[in-house]
This record gives sequence, structure tokens and C-alpha cells, in this order.
Amino acid sequence: MAQLKNNNHHVAIMAGGIGSRFWPKSRIAKPKQFLDITQTGKSLLQITYERFAKFIPEENIYIVTSKDYVALVNEHLSQLPKDNILGEPARKNTAPCIAYISFKLQQKKPQAQLICAPADHLILQEEEFEKTCLHALQFTAKAENSFVTIGIKPTHPNTGFGYIQFVPQQNETIFKVKTFTEKPDLELAKNFVESGEFLWNGGIFIAYTHNLLSAFEKHLPDVYELFQKNETCFNTQLEANAIEKIYPQCPNLSFDYGIMEKVKDVFVLPASFDWNDLGTWNSLYEVNTKDEQQNVCLSQPIMTIDARNNIISAEKEKLVVIKGLENFIVIDTPDALMIYPKNEEQEIKTLTEELKAKKMTKYL
Amino acid sequence: MAQLKNNNHHVAIMAGGIGSRFWPKSRIAKPKQFLDITQTGKSLLQITYERFAKFIPEENIYIVTSKDYVALVNEHLSQLPKDNILGEPARKNTAPCIAYISFKLQQKKPQAQLICAPADHLILQEEEFEKTCLHALQFTAKAENSFVTIGIKPTHPNTGFGYIQFVPQQNETIFKVKTFTEKPDLELAKNFVESGEFLWNGGIFIAYTHNLLSAFEKHLPDVYELFQKNETCFNTQLEANAIEKIYPQCPNLSFDYGIMEKVKDVFVLPASFDWNDLGTWNSLYEVNTKDEQQNVCLSQPIMTIDARNNIISAEKEKLVVIKGLENFIVIDTPDALMIYPKNEEQEIKTLTEELKAKKMTKYL
Repeated sequence: MAQLKNNNHHVAIMAGGIGSRFWPKSRIAKPKQFLDITQTGKSLLQITYERFAKFIPEENIYIVTSKDYVALVNEHLSQLPKDNILGEPARKNTAPCIAYISFKLQQKKPQAQLICAPADHLILQEEEFEKTCLHALQFTAKAENSFVTIGIKPTHPNTGFGYIQFVPQQNETIFKVKTFTEKPDLELAKNFVESGEFLWNGGIFIAYTHNLLSAFEKHLPDVYELFQKNETCFNTQLEANAIEKIYPQCPNLSFDYGIMEKVKDVFVLPASFDWNDLGTWNSLYEVNTKDEQQNVCLSQPIMTIDARNNIISAEKEKLVVIKGLENFIVIDTPDALMIYPKNEEQEIKTLTEELKAKKMTKYL
Repeated sequence: MAQLKNNNHHVAIMAGGIGSRFWPKSRIAKPKQFLDITQTGKSLLQITYERFAKFIPEENIYIVTSKDYVALVNEHLSQLPKDNILGEPARKNTAPCIAYISFKLQQKKPQAQLICAPADHLILQEEEFEKTCLHALQFTAKAENSFVTIGIKPTHPNTGFGYIQFVPQQNETIFKVKTFTEKPDLELAKNFVESGEFLWNGGIFIAYTHNLLSAFEKHLPDVYELFQKNETCFNTQLEANAIEKIYPQCPNLSFDYGIMEKVKDVFVLPASFDWNDLGTWNSLYEVNTKDEQQNVCLSQPIMTIDARNNIISAEKEKLVVIKGLENFIVIDTPDALMIYPKNEEQEIKTLTEELKAKKMTKYL
């Protein structure tokens, strides 16, 4: 869309995850968001950046990541000013992450509106995505104290997602949030989906930074104080040192749990775009083209014989021959090969924990 | 055994096969006999050489192989005089191979007794092997016109082997051969095994070279003539050129079919040793130590979870994680990964033919 970008619009792309459910492709040293997992020649981070760059001023795009990944982010987004990459010295989930970027931004731009979004989701309908985000930004511009979260229309009773219950209201496009529920059991998830009053939590939310800071001050005063005490360091050469001090004292807490579930003016905007969280190998299976036997082949050459419903990936030019396998995930990397039942993929995460326990860290 | 070696005793180790049923580990450029397939740090060829070197004078050990593998043989058996490696310019099965070594040897040693044996079988009881071979050599020394073949007591109705029917005779250790049957169907194989009158053809046979040559002259006169015409070239610098001319004119023919099934004085000596032809992944599965779930793991580290009866091999230090797989062959090499049902392993050979047809020769 050829409209002018609004200089108050900002985005913080959260890119600090380790993507352990995508092992052995995703590794601690180079997790999912830095991989070309969709076979487009671009990493998920690059794709996410470009999706926002269409309607957010590029100098207003920030990446919040682990300190360990700052160099990788630089490499993947060389056009990005180094100051726009925030390196967290510890993994403390999303609450400290949002506090950090909010404090920093508020100082520079008191009228900043902020979108927070994960780096590793798949959203192909970019125009619809832009429309949804701009809609949310316009809504918060009018209702300055509001928080808007993007809701995804559920297609099945997924037990791995968070659900948002909203208050249905005719002729509205944006709704008041009633409840948040994290990872329900299957029975509950089924009820949620059938009721029509629930959306998946897409992990994207929008608010004014001053509104975010007020919410931290009220609902997570300890976290607020930690950052506030060091306020004068932000956007100076002292910032890195201050953050090194602050983070170890922060609780490990999600923004949803610490803030969103507690504040009053929370709204959900149902997305008009298709969405896939690319959380697991199955989600990658879902979005990819299948061959006649419903196999997803993520590399070439792959020869399948009497093999069905598998997702198969190997290094470039490695030949894979598979006969008689059904519903498996076959992932081959230079130093690790995994052959795993597709319907047990949630346990892949525990695999990496087992490797850690066995001190086989070089495979993590 | 500390007895003197007999200078008339010779062996020709046949090492020209391409081992396509061991794909993707066995490749045309480096087939099975050159691999450390038994995880001993030695190739099958080296092990076979050493097994014979215990009772055959080392200068009497010959390797007949494809011209393409002469350098590899040199590398694996650096102690072997270069003249003891015979490079065949074309793959013509065993009949031309035996004719070649017999002509060459007869010229040097008119009283040569020759054992012909494959390079890639697994025989662990080396003393018993020596006893059996010496027994056969002694028998042919007495009965100069005889051919002795080593028979293996069948343990199951294998349809991939040749069977030798013998004339049972009390108080004998060596028996007259009645029939040869190549790869019977399952029904027939069962009858063979139950009858007690059949042994597997171990592919090892013993005869005087002059006797071998007489047999060629009588039963394969064309082949005999081809070699005989060039006789003066053998064991001279003209040999390689002569062989280049002879081989293309030779028929592709097995020694069993062309000679053994036709000559009169054929005997079979039942082996007193255990034998495995290492012909397929299953045969390797059989001879290897199993874990508690009956998996054979040929490399480390391998993590199996609810996985049973598999044979698994990867490169050194490559981590393999397998869950929920049963009765599979999983072979990972740097440029090819194969996951194949264990009970369909006979088709692995056709796989390599398919690769050839698809011009994917770099994986062969």
C-alpha cells in the first residue's frame, strides 16, 4: 500500500528463542528464526523483518534477542542500525523483554506505539497482515490506554496454543477480551473451538509504550523499578552494563501472564490473514506442498517408495531413500539424524533436555 | 598351527565385486571388500588375506580384482607384491577370472594347487577354516583330477544362495556332488534343508591348476583358446595388453555354471567353521551383537526409543535418534541416507539400478 509510514509506529521483533522442538535442524547456536525453514532463500527473521518494513519505518524496527544472537541478527539484517538490536543477557521470557524495549523507546519517542511480534511465525498474506496491524495501531491511537492482541481463528483444537475468549458484539471488528487460557487439555480445547468465542493467541500485541510502562508500574512494580532506576543509562554507552545488572534480577515471566491477563482495557482483533506458528515439524508439514503420497520433501533428491505422510529434510544434494515409512519426521543434518513419529513430536523438546542431561551438548 | 607351509599351495582371493546390496555404504568406488564392515579396524579383504596367510605362503596369495580396484588392493595389502594383484579389465563373473589366474600360475608352478575364495565372507573360526582348507588340499593332492568345493551346513532355507546336493556316505568326511542348484524358491529351499542332503555353496573351491585348465579346455574351449593363444605374454610385461584384448571377448559366466556343474570328479567338503557371506544388511544384522531391543548399532552415538530389530549405521560421531521404528535398515553416509524395511533388503540391489537409470551415478 502506497500510504506514508507513520513515524510513531514501531515494532519489536522478538528473536531470542532456541526452537528446541525443531531439533536437530534448529540448534542453540543457530535456532529456527535464523534458518531458511520455508525454503525461500531467506531466514524466518528476514521474512518477518520484510513483512513489517512494508508499513513500519525501517529505523523503527527493533530486534530483541539473546546477547548470543546479536551477531547473527547483524548478519541476517545487515541494513539494520546496530542500535536497533537489543541483546538480552539472560533468557527471562517476554515480560522483561517488553519492559526493556518500552523503557528505551519511551525515552526516544514519548508518543511511540509499539507492536511486539515473534520472529518465527509464518504469515504469507502480507497485505492482510498489514491491514490488521494498522487497524490495531489506529484503534490504540484512539483508545490510548488499550492493549490490542491479534487473535487467530482456530482451525482445530490445538492443545499447544494459548486461547483468548472475547465478548462477542455485533457490528464490531475488535472485541473486549474476557479470559486468557494457556495450553488447555483436548476436551477444553474442543469446547473452546466449538463455542466460537475463542481465538488462538497469535503472540502479537500492540500498545503505546507509555501505556505499557504504566502497566508494568502497576502489575510488575519490581520489574518496573529495576529498569526505572537505570533509566538514565538507556540509549547511552552505559546501557549494556545496566542491562547486565538488571536482567539477572528479573523474574522469568511471560508478558501475557504478567501484564495482559491483569490489565483492563485489553482487546482482541481477529486476524484476516492465515497464520502458522511454525512451532513444530508438524506445523511445517501442514503448510508445505505434499507429493502424491502426502510426503513433504524439504530437500532434494528424495526417493520415497511406499512411504506416506512423512516430512523429510536433509542437507543439499544428499540423497535420501525411504521405503515403507508412514507418519514420520526424518531430519538429517551433518552431525545428527532424527527419525521420529510425527504424532509424538511434542517430545522432541524433551529429547534435547535428555541430550543436555547426558552432556551431549555438542548436538544441541 | 605350527606346521610348514606347502609351497604348492596357492590362493586366489576374488575381490572384484561391487557389493550393491550393501548400498549406500558399499559404493562402486569403494565396495564392500574394502570396508571395515565388521568394525574391527580392518577391511574384509585384509581379514581374508590374513586368514589365508596363516597357512598359505604369502608369495602364493593372489588377488583377482577389477582393474579399477588395483590401487585400492595395493593400499589395503601393501605387503603384497604388485605382481600378485591381477586386474581384470571387465567384469565377466568368475569363469574368466579362474582361467586367468590358472594360466598364469600354471606357467610359474606346474604343480600349483589353487584355492579360489571370495574376499568378502565372514569366517571367524580361523583354525577350523585352515583345517578344512588343508583337508581339501590334501584330498586333491591324492585325487589329482578332483575339484573340491566347500559346503556350508544350511541353518535356514535361504533363497539367495546356491545349494549343493551330495551323495551321503557313511564314515566319509568328503562327498561326491550330485547336483548344483542356484537360488531355489522357498518351497524348494525348505525341501533341500529338510532332506539333509544339501549344503550351501560357500563359493570356495580347490583344484590343481592343470586340472582347472583341462576342464576349461574341455567345457569352455572358447575361453581356453583366448587365453592359450596369449600364453607367452603371461608373467611378462605384455600381460596387461594381452588381458585387455582377451577380456572383452570372454563370455560373462560363473565358474560354477561353466565348469563345476559339468566336470566329473566334483566333491564337497562340509565346513567345520561358521560362515556368513555378508551378502546383505540382514546377514550383518545376524552376526552382530544386539542391544536389549534387538537393535544392531554399528556406530555411536545412537539413541533408540521404542525401536526394535533395526540395523543402524552412521558416520563416526554422528548422533542418530530413532523412535518407534521396527525391522528397518537405517544407513547414513555423508551423501546418502537409506531407510529400508529389513525384510525387503533384496530390493536394495534394484535401487542402485534405478539410480543408474536416473543417471544419479554420483550416489553409486
